[in-house]
Amino acid sequence: MKEYCFGIDIGGTTVKCGLFNVKGDILEKWEIPTRTENNGINILPDVADAINGKIQERDLDRNEISGIGVGIPGPVDENGAVLCAVNLHWGYVQLEDQLQRLTGLPVKAGNDANVAALGEMWKGGGAGYHNVVMVTLGTGVGGGIIVNGKIVTGTHGAGGEIGHIHVEHSETEHCNCGNCGCLEQYTSATGVVRMAKQFLAETDTPSVLREGKVTAKTIFDAVKAGDGLAQQIAEKFGKYLGTALAVIAGVVDPEVFVIGGGVSKAGQVLLDYIQKYYKEYAFSACKDAVFALAELGNDAGICGAAKLVLG
Amino acid sequence: MKEYCFGIDIGGTTVKCGLFNVKGDILEKWEIPTRTENNGINILPDVADAINGKIQERDLDRNEISGIGVGIPGPVDENGAVLCAVNLHWGYVQLEDQLQRLTGLPVKAGNDANVAALGEMWKGGGAGYHNVVMVTLGTGVGGGIIVNGKIVTGTHGAGGEIGHIHVEHSETEHCNCGNCGCLEQYTSATGVVRMAKQFLAETDTPSVLREGKVTAKTIFDAVKAGDGLAQQIAEKFGKYLGTALAVIAGVVDPEVFVIGGGVSKAGQVLLDYIQKYYKEYAFSACKDAVFALAELGNDAGICGAAKLVLG
Repeated sequence: MKEYCFGIDIGGTTVKCGLFNVKGDILEKWEIPTRTENNGINILPDVADAINGKIQERDLDRNEISGIGVGIPGPVDENGAVLCAVNLHWGYVQLEDQLQRLTGLPVKAGNDANVAALGEMWKGGGAGYHNVVMVTLGTGVGGGIIVNGKIVTGTHGAGGEIGHIHVEHSETEHCNCGNCGCLEQYTSATGVVRMAKQFLAETDTPSVLREGKVTAKTIFDAVKAGDGLAQQIAEKFGKYLGTALAVIAGVVDPEVFVIGGGVSKAGQVLLDYIQKYYKEYAFSACKDAVFALAELGNDAGICGAAKLVLG
Repeated sequence: MKEYCFGIDIGGTTVKCGLFNVKGDILEKWEIPTRTENNGINILPDVADAINGKIQERDLDRNEISGIGVGIPGPVDENGAVLCAVNLHWGYVQLEDQLQRLTGLPVKAGNDANVAALGEMWKGGGAGYHNVVMVTLGTGVGGGIIVNGKIVTGTHGAGGEIGHIHVEHSETEHCNCGNCGCLEQYTSATGVVRMAKQFLAETDTPSVLREGKVTAKTIFDAVKAGDGLAQQIAEKFGKYLGTALAVIAGVVDPEVFVIGGGVSKAGQVLLDYIQKYYKEYAFSACKDAVFALAELGNDAGICGAAKLVLG
């Protein structure tokens, strides 16, 4: 049993770095900028420098380090190679091999949404469970599926791409992915605002949302304040997401759904709207699945990355 | 490496039994009746007698037998206990423990739809793949999800219960499961006939389906013969199933979908209607998933059961 490991979360702007003990306590965390120029050729050397520097600074014994886990905004194949990562300006990159050569330590890489799900299972809203579906409601909708403690990566790295499951045949606007009627178009931070604008345009119902900027936060604040129109939007949001999670339950039958991302800051009220429709549409055996809010915030990535390399 | 194993598929009327070599060749198969009276108390002793009898008859060395795999029409928990199996008149039955005591051989049990999926992965339409979604279109719609060669059982044994994923908000008739708008209500043998009857009642369009009994077979025969109304039914069937499989792809991203059950006897034309809508609604990375027809028919259960115990 070794003593330490590193969890690294590479984003389009910054690389979040964490030094962990193998129990999962964060001993130190810090950030370095992500240098995406020249097809992101500096990113992995920069990560290696950060790690090697930290080992030297703390005078750590390399034999006591389990390895480095890395989360990437893109699909990762079975050999630890990244197929592409638009935000890093990367095409195909043999991440595990390359970072292993640069540090002399074992490396394990995974898609960032999947890795965050692993983090929440280990230390967050899904702690104590081994069959977890994580939903991240941010600018887009991300997801991660954990079965028996292991990430479902999928054949094309698209396991848990639940933001792009089809939920609405009548949609005519396109999602960023090119399809029409994706879950993300209704339940991401952007999507819920889009729905709100449609409600506001189609009715004359008075609402606090007619004053000032409409955001996911102002919508759910209005819901809590008893605004009728905002509550209609929340119903529609809950119906799309609750139904989609009921469908997912019929595929992988998880113990717990963990809801994270900016929209989830609305708190318990959000879960209430989702669960109402989940319970209506889920297969009987799955109706008692637990719903929990994510707890790790920005640390989910480094935490999950650390868990990835610990296995 | 041992030489033999048994694959057993317990159904409500008969128990299918198979003796296999460990490569997966069926050396012999036979059936015994399922005695469901007295809460099915005789079923496991009967299975044990069949196996012990076969071992004696063939003078097999018990040390050369890997064990017994068993498929059950109900959910099986992590300890190999059956939670309930309506068709066998069973409540909670500690299947693995009990059959192990009766035979002196290792036993591994699983849900029959999942076990059939494993069989098709090993020796049938999914051979050569490790990430498989199997759909059985029979009286109901069953499913089995295989990730990295292992069945996704789910927390409540409801992994792969894809017949009961919700696909239609406007449905007012109830599914056998109690919910409304389940996939099974449109794409099972019963479901496709129900849809056909609605089409026939709502229109005056001439169709060969207006003559004689409407079955899944007569519908798809009419499709092949160019009957316009039958083709509309097939489109609706394909839209429901293709969309549902696209959603499943966004969850587990399989390499191959294997379509089995009575309805699948329609052959390639069935896959064409499904794939048309699958390609429209699947996430881009998943659009090239393979579609195959099941190949093992009634042997899928004993084959998968054998594979279950071989691991």
